[in-house]
Amino acid sequence: MVIVGVSKGKDWGGSHYLETFKEYEYPGPVYPVNPKYEGEEIQGCKVYVSISSLPDDPPIDLGIVAVPAKITPQIVEELGQKGVLFAHIFSSGYSELGEEGKQLEQQLLEKAKNNSIRILGPNCMGIYNPKSRIGFTHRLPLVGGPVAFVSQSGGNAHRHAFAGLVKGYYFSKIISLGNQIDLDLVDFLNYFRSDPDTKVISMYVENIRRSGNEFVQLLKETTKEKPVIIWKGGKLEAEHSTVRSHTGGLAGNIKLWKSMARQTGVILVNNFKELIEMIQTTLLYKIPKNLGTAIITGGGGPAVELTDECEAFGLKVPRITEKAQKMINEFIPEVNSNLSNPLEFGANGSHENMIKVMRILDKEPHISSIMITNNLEWYSSEKLNIEDVVKSFANTISPDSNKNLISIYNSIWVRKETIDVINEFYSKTRENGIIVYDSAQAAAKSIYRLWSYGNYLKNRGNKIN
Amino acid sequence: MVIVGVSKGKDWGGSHYLETFKEYEYPGPVYPVNPKYEGEEIQGCKVYVSISSLPDDPPIDLGIVAVPAKITPQIVEELGQKGVLFAHIFSSGYSELGEEGKQLEQQLLEKAKNNSIRILGPNCMGIYNPKSRIGFTHRLPLVGGPVAFVSQSGGNAHRHAFAGLVKGYYFSKIISLGNQIDLDLVDFLNYFRSDPDTKVISMYVENIRRSGNEFVQLLKETTKEKPVIIWKGGKLEAEHSTVRSHTGGLAGNIKLWKSMARQTGVILVNNFKELIEMIQTTLLYKIPKNLGTAIITGGGGPAVELTDECEAFGLKVPRITEKAQKMINEFIPEVNSNLSNPLEFGANGSHENMIKVMRILDKEPHISSIMITNNLEWYSSEKLNIEDVVKSFANTISPDSNKNLISIYNSIWVRKETIDVINEFYSKTRENGIIVYDSAQAAAKSIYRLWSYGNYLKNRGNKIN
Repeated sequence: MVIVGVSKGKDWGGSHYLETFKEYEYPGPVYPVNPKYEGEEIQGCKVYVSISSLPDDPPIDLGIVAVPAKITPQIVEELGQKGVLFAHIFSSGYSELGEEGKQLEQQLLEKAKNNSIRILGPNCMGIYNPKSRIGFTHRLPLVGGPVAFVSQSGGNAHRHAFAGLVKGYYFSKIISLGNQIDLDLVDFLNYFRSDPDTKVISMYVENIRRSGNEFVQLLKETTKEKPVIIWKGGKLEAEHSTVRSHTGGLAGNIKLWKSMARQTGVILVNNFKELIEMIQTTLLYKIPKNLGTAIITGGGGPAVELTDECEAFGLKVPRITEKAQKMINEFIPEVNSNLSNPLEFGANGSHENMIKVMRILDKEPHISSIMITNNLEWYSSEKLNIEDVVKSFANTISPDSNKNLISIYNSIWVRKETIDVINEFYSKTRENGIIVYDSAQAAAKSIYRLWSYGNYLKNRGNKIN
Repeated sequence: MVIVGVSKGKDWGGSHYLETFKEYEYPGPVYPVNPKYEGEEIQGCKVYVSISSLPDDPPIDLGIVAVPAKITPQIVEELGQKGVLFAHIFSSGYSELGEEGKQLEQQLLEKAKNNSIRILGPNCMGIYNPKSRIGFTHRLPLVGGPVAFVSQSGGNAHRHAFAGLVKGYYFSKIISLGNQIDLDLVDFLNYFRSDPDTKVISMYVENIRRSGNEFVQLLKETTKEKPVIIWKGGKLEAEHSTVRSHTGGLAGNIKLWKSMARQTGVILVNNFKELIEMIQTTLLYKIPKNLGTAIITGGGGPAVELTDECEAFGLKVPRITEKAQKMINEFIPEVNSNLSNPLEFGANGSHENMIKVMRILDKEPHISSIMITNNLEWYSSEKLNIEDVVKSFANTISPDSNKNLISIYNSIWVRKETIDVINEFYSKTRENGIIVYDSAQAAAKSIYRLWSYGNYLKNRGNKIN
């Protein structure tokens, strides 16, 4: 690994990468290059004054380039001549700025082709690969996981890395693409398609550089094997200044993207929140057999709201069978309760009763999702054992059940006293295969999309679950 | 005030009301009635064995009835004969249960008419009126405010009372309607229309009992004077079991409600979160002159997301004027920045620069909303003085400005260390006329709806702002 453009006493640019690799205890040699620091060391690494003076053995895979844009073509040429295989160009100041920058990109590309080196970027944060202990910023987890993320925004790459940590999933790799003058979205899609570490491919895309047909064909092949979740940014104005300036490409029409998603089984989401919820959903839940959802909550108003939100975003809240209603009625009276679905029990909604009801719902054939609201403030004030509570919910679903258990929790006022309980609840539910969504709307969107993906696979004769 | 049906040692039903009034130090006499407790006291109040034995002076305004449904007609008759003006019937077990319950409601209504007493309910939580120190549950604030809420769900009445407290607004009155056999939505709309304490009328509605024309006419008259915000519950299935069972009425088609909202200037919202955000918006913001929104954030990806979300929900993100761009360019270079809108400054996005930019935006005629993202984790770790930070933002808007300042903050991970800063930020922003939304989507929905209301008023020749 070589980093071209490292300064002393700065945690920025090339130096930021150097410090990060040190923090991660990257196992291979790291060679900082800066002609100004002859004979010196930075972060315990000997500084080289030129690329040509770097050791030849072991061979260098990756060069990170963080120097002014103008001299990057020259640097890429030198890296190529040294036998470096890939250059990640962190520098910015290319097509995102206009005509002059475009010419610079052309020069970069020529130098790369003539010297057999591939380019990631320019204008990007590069690679986070916990298994290989490389990353683009401090304190990222060094635990690998099943999620790949390819992002046309460095900011989104950065926040997703940390969001995964909070939401309890880890990454095989994150790629910040930048201006995609050489390696592009399609290359990485192709790579992750056959990457055994990657179970779910997620992307933040503003535009594609290649023929749509090629992309569509590859997506069709990929979704057969693993889900592909795409957040399309820059939706409404194809020519919007932000998207244009951001990574210098054309945005494309959202209608085209929707039609593409239908043809390919891609799961399309609208924003960052939906992206991380969809990834959680894909990782933890079985593909639902149907859209039937049973809702258990306290009180008529909230029951109506949950039902409205589920149905507005594609789920169904059908009556449960007469048989199930009768079984429930054996221990819950009808007064102040609703036993048909949504189920609400008023003063009879004890934890024990809810558990009994959930066991009955597990046998309902036209229900695939069981949604409950959890009052974490009450768990906190009653000092309940969170692990026991969560396990009692999770155990209502038999091992061969095809149902998913969904928890809804949202408080408009997070109190300091409740935070520990909330975080424990989040982590215990995850361990037990339950996702906590912040609204029925959020749950419904994700579950409906997972069902649609299953439907796509089924219609094409692919096995699901 | 008389409470019929009070038990000892219980904080439920009639006793719950008694305890609540005691807690609130309700200034008038409270007479609990229960034939079982002759000569005894509950909560320091002498218990009466019958309604006829209650004192005649001072006259009794309100009777709260919390006895089995079957005997409520008899109780209402006695209350009427005693000269009580209103009976709030807490008891449930009426039309929400079926035919037998409907007949009971008929009997109730007859007794009420024959004895000149009006009924609120049955099957409802009744009244919260902080000024008069009555309420339906413990620990509600005794501070009055500008918001009226009429709710066909007791659960929603309850959570709205507390949500207001968290969001920093207070209530003139909250009414839980129940089955509306006598006093109904339209009566309360009429009342709040001329209630001087009420500046904003909000409602949770599942169905109406009267002619739509009467309701529409009254809404038209009311929205001229104050905004009316309606959350329509039970949207998708007019015959949905939940809504039918909940308060025993017919739900009505959501398309009709949308058309009614267009005709009357009513602001329609979809769920509880949108309701409280809309109330905050109506209370704190000027009606925007146009949909133009300037966005200030860090990083291209988030800028694209904020723009997408604003435009998806009705706002516009137009380029700012050349003049403004030039002024900004005097202190922020173009590299790694976007100066046209959305505005993002990368490493140049210091607090001082943001403030300067906001002052420039305040003069842009086609912009009514200035949206900034606030990194409260950073404020917290840097130990910034939150009041100073917020004031510096608020002061960028000149006193005669027609702009609204919008803050966006959302973290997927609330840490204990940050909670105090978050809560202080929420309260200081409110004091300075700034709302913190949890997404651009939430802001856009509310601002667009406020603009639409203004547009409705303008088209009908009403003055706004």
